[in-house]
Amino acid sequence: MRYKCKVSYDGTLFHGFQKQNGLRTVEEELTSTLKEVFHNDIKIYASGRTDAGVHAKGQVFHFDNDLEIKPLSLKKAINSLLTKDIYINNIEVVDENFHARFSAHRKEYHYLADLGEFDPLKRNYRCYYFYKNIDLDKVVECSKILLGTHDFTSFSKKKELDNPIRTIFDIEITQDGTLITFKFIGDGFFHNQVRIMVAMLLEVGRGEITIDNFKDILESKNRRRAPKVMPPEGLYLSKVYY
Amino acid sequence: MRYKCKVSYDGTLFHGFQKQNGLRTVEEELTSTLKEVFHNDIKIYASGRTDAGVHAKGQVFHFDNDLEIKPLSLKKAINSLLTKDIYINNIEVVDENFHARFSAHRKEYHYLADLGEFDPLKRNYRCYYFYKNIDLDKVVECSKILLGTHDFTSFSKKKELDNPIRTIFDIEITQDGTLITFKFIGDGFFHNQVRIMVAMLLEVGRGEITIDNFKDILESKNRRRAPKVMPPEGLYLSKVYY
Repeated sequence: MRYKCKVSYDGTLFHGFQKQNGLRTVEEELTSTLKEVFHNDIKIYASGRTDAGVHAKGQVFHFDNDLEIKPLSLKKAINSLLTKDIYINNIEVVDENFHARFSAHRKEYHYLADLGEFDPLKRNYRCYYFYKNIDLDKVVECSKILLGTHDFTSFSKKKELDNPIRTIFDIEITQDGTLITFKFIGDGFFHNQVRIMVAMLLEVGRGEITIDNFKDILESKNRRRAPKVMPPEGLYLSKVYY
Repeated sequence: MRYKCKVSYDGTLFHGFQKQNGLRTVEEELTSTLKEVFHNDIKIYASGRTDAGVHAKGQVFHFDNDLEIKPLSLKKAINSLLTKDIYINNIEVVDENFHARFSAHRKEYHYLADLGEFDPLKRNYRCYYFYKNIDLDKVVECSKILLGTHDFTSFSKKKELDNPIRTIFDIEITQDGTLITFKFIGDGFFHNQVRIMVAMLLEVGRGEITIDNFKDILESKNRRRAPKVMPPEGLYLSKVYY
């Protein structure tokens, strides 16, 4: 039996998704809880990693097990044993051709940047942006440059990419009060890519660089040209599309 | 100089407001930060305590110091040194007759109860209520019994009250999606009073007791008649009126 699980987590107290010896990670918590439920070691496969402090509302992973358990009962059993900063939203039994990572064809990330006054109750769930004077129309206009298929080397932290080409299908940037929400849908994003894109778009919004500069940076395929990166607490893996 | 400070905090990681030896409290963090700023011991006076896990958006405290510092500069200095789960929203210099506790004539508390599915990202900021079938009209109707001046012994955890009489001026109960927000404005509330009132109102809403039962409980002046109490994470000290 292959089980597909949709999971939410508060990334604040995790050293990211992926298992690391001695550190508290989402994967570690999930596999140790699955071991309690199934009484054997279970390897899980996620759609991808998330960094320390990054949240998920629709992360997906799968695992295999010989036992056939009703998805709703399994969901209840896992959630009752799981740490409270992770929650399984949905489980379904899927075909063995399904793979959480390789079958994913789109991912949606959200980034929340707040121009308002710091609120200690929301500090882990959005970025309080220091510069308050942002020209949002310019940010929205500039973001269109990122749409479509590009070499995103400039917006990646990774030193070497086997394939730096990715496609962004949709970008939506909205403001509600002091809160700016960025939504990106693409076929995949590199390590730190969303956080760098948002940081550089906000540089345009505050007038530090022009839209033409931004275009140059993308076209330069030089990762040193985009040195800013937003902090992790504003980032959410919102949805994985299959 | 007497300084009046409005402060917000995320109660999650505090053992309440009031100083307790060896435990992390809001008062302890505030006084140790004030000591760093003023280089001497400073005693603070708050409008009242809050329990472990309870949040504040508009808690007020005052303190005295001979040094005259511009309120905005002082606010910046304190916030830059303060732990990130506390934030000073406002400071003003007030008359020496002002007292954060004794001058307060009304307090506003909010309680957030969510009937929807558990969200690990909001787990510390609202109560996920187990029973989903709530007749909100009944809750609203029943809440009117609490308005006005009453002996609130039944809704207090304290064994002996010097004066069990308090006045509730306003109650507002609204639902937005699955989230029910209770707002209470009164001249003061006893330990656990808001959390007990909400728990018992929800008992009415789910049909466990009738509105007449609720009225009986209030009139019985017997604290054992209202045995339910909501958990702290849904409670906010929202405003103190002077």
